[in-house]
Amino acid sequence: MCQLLGMNANTATDVMFSFTGFAQRADEHKDGFGIAFFEGPGVRLMVDAQSARTSPIAEMVRRFPIRSLHIVAHIRKATQGVVALQNTHPFVRELWGRYWVFAHNGDLRGFNPRLHGAFRPVGETDSERAFCWLMQELAKAHASVPTVTELTRTLRELAPQVAAHGTFNFMLGNGQALWAHCSTNLHFVERRHPFTQASLQDDDMTVNFAELTLPSDRVAIVVTEPLTSDEAWQAFAPGELRVFEAGAAIGPA
Amino acid sequence: MCQLLGMNANTATDVMFSFTGFAQRADEHKDGFGIAFFEGPGVRLMVDAQSARTSPIAEMVRRFPIRSLHIVAHIRKATQGVVALQNTHPFVRELWGRYWVFAHNGDLRGFNPRLHGAFRPVGETDSERAFCWLMQELAKAHASVPTVTELTRTLRELAPQVAAHGTFNFMLGNGQALWAHCSTNLHFVERRHPFTQASLQDDDMTVNFAELTLPSDRVAIVVTEPLTSDEAWQAFAPGELRVFEAGAAIGPA
Repeated sequence: MCQLLGMNANTATDVMFSFTGFAQRADEHKDGFGIAFFEGPGVRLMVDAQSARTSPIAEMVRRFPIRSLHIVAHIRKATQGVVALQNTHPFVRELWGRYWVFAHNGDLRGFNPRLHGAFRPVGETDSERAFCWLMQELAKAHASVPTVTELTRTLRELAPQVAAHGTFNFMLGNGQALWAHCSTNLHFVERRHPFTQASLQDDDMTVNFAELTLPSDRVAIVVTEPLTSDEAWQAFAPGELRVFEAGAAIGPA
Repeated sequence: MCQLLGMNANTATDVMFSFTGFAQRADEHKDGFGIAFFEGPGVRLMVDAQSARTSPIAEMVRRFPIRSLHIVAHIRKATQGVVALQNTHPFVRELWGRYWVFAHNGDLRGFNPRLHGAFRPVGETDSERAFCWLMQELAKAHASVPTVTELTRTLRELAPQVAAHGTFNFMLGNGQALWAHCSTNLHFVERRHPFTQASLQDDDMTVNFAELTLPSDRVAIVVTEPLTSDEAWQAFAPGELRVFEAGAAIGPA
């Protein structure tokens, strides 16, 4: 199984701390990694078919902290598709003049939807097929970029149609909001005032967020398994789709 | 004016030598740089809104040579659009299940085509608008991915319609072929057996390609201004569109 990491914040935040813990898990997930950073409407995608533990690109992510409001990252253990760049998450497409970033954890069986629109997979994964289908159906459902609430409503109709084919934990970001859907395993935490200290579960590293933040800062982190041992992680329920905006979970779960 | 660099090869080649010379020109072109490497059908895009001389990402490109068959690079001097990631070339879109990479040098005035299809600009540049229009018109002209010859024919019809609005030096790559169009300034060289020594014009660096290559290797380099002082660079004629495949210029100019 792959692992997912998403961040949505109300102030540009460097993801180095969380990515360091996340990359420690790459021993078992050695078939590539990727991380997409939104910078305004632009997106910076760093992907490698090597493990996040040995990749020079992952090393750069750790060494040159890039500050962003919206991040989606993935470490891969291949289930479908060869170990190659075109099969490495996150995937990026443009719709309505915005970039959309998608990463998936799980395995979809017999998911071969009719892709007659403007979105076709480049690689061979079930994940990229699911992303193309979601983009196609969003494009059909809305003539131009809708509100986050409307998008959430549409995604709540679409996600179960894919999830019927297998495990469909996914993250979808458009630089404004982060949508996260859980089939089996997904957790989130909201970091906000009063900030506390946090210790990585997978590494000997502790950060006191109180020293690094302003009281108005809010950061939501969504991840397959909790990254820290001393924060109030909440588990998603199976079938739950949550949306995060400005660093907080919004609306009903 | 920006500067363009493209490479198309029949064997995976590292672009470090050419990129080093190219990046030396970033003093005048300090508003960002980008480089796209195809790895099979996958594409790795490294972009930064900083100068290629100071950007940590450009430093990584120089330090960790990435081998590729197809590369498109760009250093930017902003004419339209703010200095920001979303305005930094190359731009990437997917069409017919392939990635397409585009970079432009020039300035287009009053080019506001009707974009009613699946390709919309994310940033504010004339360049990304031109790319979206080319993608839209290619998608209209062909139901699925056509041959390189057919694509070249269509691009020969489309390019002059954009070039009528100003300077339209561009490179377009899809991981198979590299198309290069000249309005004002573009040069190419084919490196092939017997390989010789080449010295960068902009840097104190010489490479003896004979030591690094096999006799069957072929590499075409396309660039705004010749990179080396001792190779047989050919200038494009104004209005000329050339296509490069497997490291060689193919068909009539």
